[in-house]
Amino acid sequence: MTAIRYELIKKCKQTGARLGRVTTPHGTFETPVFMPVGTLATVKTMSPDELKEIGAGIILSNTYHLWLRPGEDIVQEAGGLHKFMNWDGSILTDSGGFQVFSLSDLREITEEGVHFRNHLNGDKLFLSPEKATQIQNALGSDIIMAFDECPPYPATPEYMKQSVERTTRWAERCLKAHSRPHDQGLFGIVQGGEYEELRKQSAKDLISLNFPGYAIGGLSVGEPKDVMNRVLEFTTPLLPENKPRYLMGVGSPDSLIDGAIRGVDMFDCVLPTRIARNGTVMTSGGRLVVRNAKYARDFSPLDPNCDCKVCKNYTRAYIRHLIRCNETFGIRLTTYHNLYFLLKLMEQVRQAIREDRLGDFREEFFERYGFNRPDAKNF
Amino acid sequence: MTAIRYELIKKCKQTGARLGRVTTPHGTFETPVFMPVGTLATVKTMSPDELKEIGAGIILSNTYHLWLRPGEDIVQEAGGLHKFMNWDGSILTDSGGFQVFSLSDLREITEEGVHFRNHLNGDKLFLSPEKATQIQNALGSDIIMAFDECPPYPATPEYMKQSVERTTRWAERCLKAHSRPHDQGLFGIVQGGEYEELRKQSAKDLISLNFPGYAIGGLSVGEPKDVMNRVLEFTTPLLPENKPRYLMGVGSPDSLIDGAIRGVDMFDCVLPTRIARNGTVMTSGGRLVVRNAKYARDFSPLDPNCDCKVCKNYTRAYIRHLIRCNETFGIRLTTYHNLYFLLKLMEQVRQAIREDRLGDFREEFFERYGFNRPDAKNF
Ligand SMILES: [Zn+2]
Ligand SMILES: [Zn+2]
Repeated sequence: MTAIRYELIKKCKQTGARLGRVTTPHGTFETPVFMPVGTLATVKTMSPDELKEIGAGIILSNTYHLWLRPGEDIVQEAGGLHKFMNWDGSILTDSGGFQVFSLSDLREITEEGVHFRNHLNGDKLFLSPEKATQIQNALGSDIIMAFDECPPYPATPEYMKQSVERTTRWAERCLKAHSRPHDQGLFGIVQGGEYEELRKQSAKDLISLNFPGYAIGGLSVGEPKDVMNRVLEFTTPLLPENKPRYLMGVGSPDSLIDGAIRGVDMFDCVLPTRIARNGTVMTSGGRLVVRNAKYARDFSPLDPNCDCKVCKNYTRAYIRHLIRCNETFGIRLTTYHNLYFLLKLMEQVRQAIREDRLGDFREEFFERYGFNRPDAKNF
Repeated sequence: MTAIRYELIKKCKQTGARLGRVTTPHGTFETPVFMPVGTLATVKTMSPDELKEIGAGIILSNTYHLWLRPGEDIVQEAGGLHKFMNWDGSILTDSGGFQVFSLSDLREITEEGVHFRNHLNGDKLFLSPEKATQIQNALGSDIIMAFDECPPYPATPEYMKQSVERTTRWAERCLKAHSRPHDQGLFGIVQGGEYEELRKQSAKDLISLNFPGYAIGGLSVGEPKDVMNRVLEFTTPLLPENKPRYLMGVGSPDSLIDGAIRGVDMFDCVLPTRIARNGTVMTSGGRLVVRNAKYARDFSPLDPNCDCKVCKNYTRAYIRHLIRCNETFGIRLTTYHNLYFLLKLMEQVRQAIREDRLGDFREEFFERYGFNRPDAKNF
């Protein structure tokens, strides 16, 4: 009996994309799903009520950051992450691996784990499969991730092979260390870079360990989008149909659609919230840098086709003014709209799967958004 | 026919404090009232919905700041300040005088107005009674303030006398320049520092001009609290009973109560929102610096006696964590609570007036809050 259940509702006849449903101890959400990122037990600027309001069923939080601040012991004492942050929906935590490999200097990878210095004060730290699992057990998130090695892009096949094999050994250790399988589902992470044989090996090894879900790691790390799509094309068919597939670190509208078409069910990314803080929003007509001077007297909404409460009540001119003045309420508004936009996009994706027309939807969306233009920004 | 109506409902038999009701083109609110400050057309971190939720009937916004950014012409084009910021309650704007005298260097005061350099980029600017009134007419706030000279504390009686007389001449010019008396009420500002004779002269001169309301200026500028209370004691009796009295720049709980007892109806201050951003909150047991390490494992609410949604849903430990990590949501929570606390306090003050027991309420509140302790912080 596992904490996480996945149900495949139907496949899009046009694309093969999957419409599904994931149930965790904190509720049910439909897939493909986008998970807003709440790094430090808060989706920056948003209240849990607002996340509910825009239809978020699951959010992601970062083990590495919570380990450092406030410390997983404090979260545990608070009654777990859900209680600590007042969010009663589902939560997925990553393993900390990605942050250790991307944020820290002077790391040393051994079979035992990774020695590194933290990004806040340079203190020496050690993260291992056992430690990453113990922290996530203390946090009490619904879905926890195996601690994996995140190799750089590009990496040689020789390095990647060693890394894939270590990631499998580490995944086994995570499984053994996992103390709450009854109410937390541990996902394995398929690595292998752009090498089909290594993805096959990684998937086969992890599937033999029977995880309740599988992530596809090592993508969205700087490789071109066609490489990501190609890797997805040969990787998702390796994964069991009755388990959810999670593509880590992907949040641009084109990649969400292209990922769904290639059989991905779950996505997360800081993109919508991060660009919101820089005064950039996603709209049905493409991205819009609302902080630009040309919007100073533009009294239309961020996106005339959006029915979110920001677009119903506030103008570009007002939001531009707030952001220019570094007023927090400005980034509250852009963040809310961007998350609404992506969650709405995923709703449209699910509806298109239901209607066997995700391919058509993709064409329409790409054309409107500007992804088909030669100067399309990769965002 | 004036845009602003004041109705005296009753006086507290114990203290003489006034319970009243002010009606503006954007609604009615009871007095004594505290007005949250929304300097740049936003009460920092708060949405208009949240301001409604905590019972705010009127907010204050700053003419000087809006003049510089985004410019009153843009606000006017947006349909006025209410529409621009999506707030349909009442708004009071100050005249810009206080900012000119407190923020800018190199100012030169002439009979015509004040030459100064702005605090953002040092550009030369000029503000006069006519200009301050024109800007406020363009902003479209419900209550606008006369442009006054704000003398430093302390100032000699000679200087203060000249200043009082100039402020009266400027008030006349504001009245003449005011183009929207049908839907904006212009308040005069009584000056005179701590000098009773000058307050009398100022009040008499301004009353002869028949403003729909009067502010008491030149207080809360660094003088001891007993000086402020003494000045109020001889100033408010000089003002007409049938007009609201507004004490500018006051927001500490003790001064709000003591001001109400001395016949003040309206208050504003950045204090609750500013200290919130530093991680300090007002509670029924006194102030609390929630960012302090001692709250790291304190899973009780900011104020166990508060029924605001922050205190119902979040712990000190969580809020401390957010503030320590510079997470915006932390100051959303402390700001919401602090404004709720002050608006609730004013509700309690009004209730105590209704029951002729504001003196008793003051004693109980001061005792609980810690204002009676020898080491009481002036905040
Ligand atoms: Zn919107
Ligand atoms: Zn509270």
